[in-house]
Amino acid sequence: MSAAAEVVRRCRELAAISEEDGRLTRPFASAGMARANALVGGWMAQAGLDVRVDAAGNLVGRLAGSDASAGTLLLGSHLDSVRDAGAFDGPLGVLSALACVERLRAQGAALPFAIDVLGFSDEEGLRYGTAYLGSRALAGTFDPALLSLRDAEGVSLGDALRAFGDAPVASASRAGERLLGYCEVHIEQGPVLERRGLPVGVVSAIAGATRADVSFTGRAGHAGTVPMDARRDAACAAAEWVLAVEAAGRGEPGLVATVGVLEARPGAANVVPGGAVASLDVRHADDAVRGAAVAALRARAGAIGAAREVQVAWRTVHDEPAVALDPSLTGALGDAVAGRGLPVARLTSGAGHDAVALSALTATAMLFVRCAGGVSHHPDESVREDDVAVALDVLHAFVMGLAARD
Amino acid sequence: MSAAAEVVRRCRELAAISEEDGRLTRPFASAGMARANALVGGWMAQAGLDVRVDAAGNLVGRLAGSDASAGTLLLGSHLDSVRDAGAFDGPLGVLSALACVERLRAQGAALPFAIDVLGFSDEEGLRYGTAYLGSRALAGTFDPALLSLRDAEGVSLGDALRAFGDAPVASASRAGERLLGYCEVHIEQGPVLERRGLPVGVVSAIAGATRADVSFTGRAGHAGTVPMDARRDAACAAAEWVLAVEAAGRGEPGLVATVGVLEARPGAANVVPGGAVASLDVRHADDAVRGAAVAALRARAGAIGAAREVQVAWRTVHDEPAVALDPSLTGALGDAVAGRGLPVARLTSGAGHDAVALSALTATAMLFVRCAGGVSHHPDESVREDDVAVALDVLHAFVMGLAARD
Repeated sequence: MSAAAEVVRRCRELAAISEEDGRLTRPFASAGMARANALVGGWMAQAGLDVRVDAAGNLVGRLAGSDASAGTLLLGSHLDSVRDAGAFDGPLGVLSALACVERLRAQGAALPFAIDVLGFSDEEGLRYGTAYLGSRALAGTFDPALLSLRDAEGVSLGDALRAFGDAPVASASRAGERLLGYCEVHIEQGPVLERRGLPVGVVSAIAGATRADVSFTGRAGHAGTVPMDARRDAACAAAEWVLAVEAAGRGEPGLVATVGVLEARPGAANVVPGGAVASLDVRHADDAVRGAAVAALRARAGAIGAAREVQVAWRTVHDEPAVALDPSLTGALGDAVAGRGLPVARLTSGAGHDAVALSALTATAMLFVRCAGGVSHHPDESVREDDVAVALDVLHAFVMGLAARD
Repeated sequence: MSAAAEVVRRCRELAAISEEDGRLTRPFASAGMARANALVGGWMAQAGLDVRVDAAGNLVGRLAGSDASAGTLLLGSHLDSVRDAGAFDGPLGVLSALACVERLRAQGAALPFAIDVLGFSDEEGLRYGTAYLGSRALAGTFDPALLSLRDAEGVSLGDALRAFGDAPVASASRAGERLLGYCEVHIEQGPVLERRGLPVGVVSAIAGATRADVSFTGRAGHAGTVPMDARRDAACAAAEWVLAVEAAGRGEPGLVATVGVLEARPGAANVVPGGAVASLDVRHADDAVRGAAVAALRARAGAIGAAREVQVAWRTVHDEPAVALDPSLTGALGDAVAGRGLPVARLTSGAGHDAVALSALTATAMLFVRCAGGVSHHPDESVREDDVAVALDVLHAFVMGLAARD
């Protein structure tokens, strides 16, 4: 079996480890995560790596280098999942990193630096509603106040971690170490590579994101008795704004703007809606562009409300700046793609990744792999084996390039 | 206390009889309905009426006429309510009818015909989801298949009625009797009389209504990774259609068009909606106008879907023709309003009423009373005592006019 086929097979085998029957749901620090760490840790050990689980539940498999002072290169992704997930979001990066190390060992390549293959314990934030718990702990930016967060069953994050070992989370930090950088392979989760007919692409930045909850309050009324010109219909105001959000996204290159939550209240067929709630999600690689778009949409909501005598309340839930990946590492990754005879596509990631957290610790780079139909966070998520083969070649060339440069 | 003040006081006293603590919820054939019938029946008996509850749970208080062959005039409205209702929707008509009879008796007026004051057991349809159970039984149009309907607790309609007596529902029918007509006083439940500065108005027709469920199916996707031009956003399609519904209502005099249910699915802030559901409610006094509007909106939904690659499914839930009230009785009611020195406003009722069911049995007329802000189906529902006084004068003059004509 080719290395790429083995990576795909391992992703599928891993996908059977879940907290829910019949579908893949593997939250942070769950029993399923412990079994996933044991399975992947076993493959790491077979490959000759030194395996441990750190105080944040991250799986670490280490290949020592020939020069103890040469530092460590970090490769990997996450092993947790969303609810009813696909097999590749996360695991593809961990198992591609492991396949790379296997190839290096098979070739007898003696690298000066060490390589750590990482399987992060939390990127999706399914259990505690806050993402990057594992990668932030490793980056030394974990906020201890989070230890008192409770999951849906009332279990605190601190207690969940204690089931994984007794060391303080701070001990997972790699801050202060000599690190060469972090490189992550990940499915694109979007349709751009597929549209361009390319197996892989180099990520230049991870988009910043603003999320807001917007509520519209008009006046409820009887659908049969209130004339159209006497209405203050909150759902119509929301609908007008939804189309403004879409137009804003369409009008600005690289901007995505989404209303994912939209609900009229009270939500009865014979009642003119007195209320409506909507969410806003806006992302762009340039924080100034994103900020201007959000401000314009907030003003637009206010103007729509004023024209309709509908009150608008705006709550910014989340405001995350863009992360530029490291130009030098990203350039090296592009060279590896070009060396494989492929055009170098540079993409902005609209989704967040562990690289966001790791960028606080070290230089980061990401390689996207084409995924069918852009489908992700869904059991239908899939990748082509020949695309994985390209990704493995690129990752291997990238590591060898670093070794040559070092 | 004036008769109008007593009507308002009785409506408020009756509003305390509920199946729910702290708010008025009085469904068909409930224990609360039995207590409401007992309270109103007591007032009827005090007024010298012959009181009974029929096989459909309707309260009937009869004032005999001097000529047994002269037939019966029906006056009244309903005693059931929506959930968290106001005090006047229904009871105002029953207690105005009772006040009218009280005035006739106080005056010693000897009418040739009998008067039945009716308190219908179900107009709102809260318990079994189907309206006019009481008035249809009285009209002889009750469908016995409905007896097997079950409420939220699993109690069949037949069993609920048996708690009110053992007679077959058919025995409630008044079909075949000599009837002079039915006249109902009701709050407007809309803002038209208030806007025109009038205490009462004569209803010329009850609008026909079409209700439909419309679902939009596009493709869900990641809000950060799917570019705007690759989306098939079902919520945007629904939003475009919501505004088309509003424009249709605004563009046609007398038409009301409402989307009361609007919900994006799956309904997560970071997911491009793959689905959306919406309801449509369209009403107009002219069935042809309503039919054309509904057909245009259905075509518009299809066109929006086609342009966006979003599938549209349409299900017509309900299609009720308009009911023209009786020109002769309505004219007599208008004469009574004019006789009170008021302009005669003629209104279409956008809401359904017991008069819809009664129109299958006899000639019907309705008098609307101004209500504050057009608010109804809400605890804030209210009427002015001086407006009720006008309605009592008009109803009394209407009855005396019939007696003079008879």
